[in-house]
Amino acid sequence: MSAPGVREAVHRYFMQGAIELARRGWYTTRPNPRVGCILVADERIIGEGWHERAGEGHAERRALDDAAGRGHATRGATAYVTLEPCSHVGRTAPCTEALIEAGVSRVVIGAGDPNPAVDGRGVSALRAAGIDVVTGVLADRCRELNPGFNRRMTSGRPRVRVKLAMSLDGRTAAANGESQWITGEAARADVHRLRAESGAVLVGRGTRQADDPSLTVRLDGEWPQPLRVVVDTHLEITPAARMLEPPGAVRIFTASADDARIDALERAGAAVERVALAGEGLDLPAVLDSLGAQEINDVLVEAGPTLAGSLAEAGCVDEYLLYMAPMLIGDTGRGLVHLPGANRLADARPLEIIAVEPVGSDWRIRARPAAADNRN
Amino acid sequence: MSAPGVREAVHRYFMQGAIELARRGWYTTRPNPRVGCILVADERIIGEGWHERAGEGHAERRALDDAAGRGHATRGATAYVTLEPCSHVGRTAPCTEALIEAGVSRVVIGAGDPNPAVDGRGVSALRAAGIDVVTGVLADRCRELNPGFNRRMTSGRPRVRVKLAMSLDGRTAAANGESQWITGEAARADVHRLRAESGAVLVGRGTRQADDPSLTVRLDGEWPQPLRVVVDTHLEITPAARMLEPPGAVRIFTASADDARIDALERAGAAVERVALAGEGLDLPAVLDSLGAQEINDVLVEAGPTLAGSLAEAGCVDEYLLYMAPMLIGDTGRGLVHLPGANRLADARPLEIIAVEPVGSDWRIRARPAAADNRN
Repeated sequence: MSAPGVREAVHRYFMQGAIELARRGWYTTRPNPRVGCILVADERIIGEGWHERAGEGHAERRALDDAAGRGHATRGATAYVTLEPCSHVGRTAPCTEALIEAGVSRVVIGAGDPNPAVDGRGVSALRAAGIDVVTGVLADRCRELNPGFNRRMTSGRPRVRVKLAMSLDGRTAAANGESQWITGEAARADVHRLRAESGAVLVGRGTRQADDPSLTVRLDGEWPQPLRVVVDTHLEITPAARMLEPPGAVRIFTASADDARIDALERAGAAVERVALAGEGLDLPAVLDSLGAQEINDVLVEAGPTLAGSLAEAGCVDEYLLYMAPMLIGDTGRGLVHLPGANRLADARPLEIIAVEPVGSDWRIRARPAAADNRN
Repeated sequence: MSAPGVREAVHRYFMQGAIELARRGWYTTRPNPRVGCILVADERIIGEGWHERAGEGHAERRALDDAAGRGHATRGATAYVTLEPCSHVGRTAPCTEALIEAGVSRVVIGAGDPNPAVDGRGVSALRAAGIDVVTGVLADRCRELNPGFNRRMTSGRPRVRVKLAMSLDGRTAAANGESQWITGEAARADVHRLRAESGAVLVGRGTRQADDPSLTVRLDGEWPQPLRVVVDTHLEITPAARMLEPPGAVRIFTASADDARIDALERAGAAVERVALAGEGLDLPAVLDSLGAQEINDVLVEAGPTLAGSLAEAGCVDEYLLYMAPMLIGDTGRGLVHLPGANRLADARPLEIIAVEPVGSDWRIRARPAAADNRN
């Protein structure tokens, strides 16, 4: 029997391995969470599994299959799982059942189920079957595998990340409106990866009209395409919009009841959903509720100043991703965020900067609303 | 006799020590350069010196005195000096002479004299006396001891650093003009250290009127005070301005010929200098030439958007120091840099970001005009 410190270090070692397995499903598990599982007997790995795609095997089941395929018995083994095993019947049988049937003697869990109504049921089911359960090993890192999923499970809404590109002096376009190519190639590739890891990419009317973006992932190789979403209060988008072209689905949120236009857009393949007005724009929380109900974990907002400001003022932003290009555009350029209510310094929205990293010749700033921002 | 690689490593080792000695004079040597010197015999340090204050001993002489005081003979020793020893008579006798008289057999030099007219004369004088001279050891690091001095020696003008404080969205003040306390305490202390290491601190009329700054160094302990400079085209400053209070000297650049006002300001202790107009403001290169002629190595510009933009457009900025506070002020806030000529994206001024570092809860971005900015 080793000392408790040694046992904990061993648990962390194998859990880190399970986290790395989970990451293999980074772009493909949605709307499911990313999960990894390692089976260990006598401190040696006998099976590895990770969730790859909704409807396919869960990590635990795949690890058990892997052990069987490699000719290892699982009776008495320890299972390391990044997320509390499910105890309910979904598209596949509950993982708790598979672990119990396989005869594992211990299950070490990273993060609990983010859904407070479910949290602990997997643990209880395992314990009821006489299995030793250890929880909370590398819990933070395990939770970081699924920020969007966790957000949706706890709030019913997707995680909202607002991506903006600006000059060093906070300008998104020159005075004449030119905005293409502010940031460099590495930053643009980074944004395509963000699109690929997001269930939905969302733009406002302004950006859609100004840039006519396709909002697809354009990277070498095969990548999942996000749902493309536009928030278009007066339904100004036409069926000729580039974002209606394949690949990927399209959803349009509007307050308009113009049936002819809605019909034309639906014939062009888009889903059109009516949402109430809130102030001068759409009810953005209602938009997010709808996307959450459609099992979207992560929304990447490629925002202009109006939408970014509306989301900020509605308290709907989880994270800002600011790409900062090394140039000065000058104060006649277009501003980053329109906050109509802000006049005094006390109206400024406090942020917490999480990370500042170089991306090619640009820099990427990750920030989130400060806890002190009680307007959220 | 050791292998050349070993000899070079030994040279770098002692030169690094000399650099650290030079840094002790960081805030006090101006207008002279920061210089450190180590004397070595049999691979052991026998004397150390650094330049501390203009008019007092140079690093070489102080190292020789140190060796003598410690009872070491300097004949046959090696001297490590961060800067090529001077060969001309200044306030003190030439250092080359002191080294020759002391009988050192080798002099290892970091950076050459930045003044191209003088570069190499110290080396020649030493070699003519039969001393073995090694040059260019840790040359970049040695040059970085004296960026302002080097700038003045090569161009006649001080190094110009423009300090700005902004929100994450590039705003220096709220819509109502409030600008105090955007950045936190750590950033403000950092700015006071920047003032202390600068021969002059410069503001424009706008900042002077809006903030009525004292521009003094306010840190615990004794710190040198910079020359305080205002660029005030129409001489709107009055003798009641806070920047005219002690400690430290004041210089006012203006195009005004209002003798009564000039007289009042001079009676309040300020020097007033007339400079020609260039466009709507003063001839900024002429201002810098004048400061260079007064042996100012480093100018810290605490700029508002107008002066920052004018300096940028005149190609007078060596480095930007942007303090970025974690908040969004919104696009009605005051912009960072006014570039009246900029309309298209092609008019943006390209920068090179040197470093991005946290300072308390703020971040400091160091950037310089990109080599590709041929408008400079």
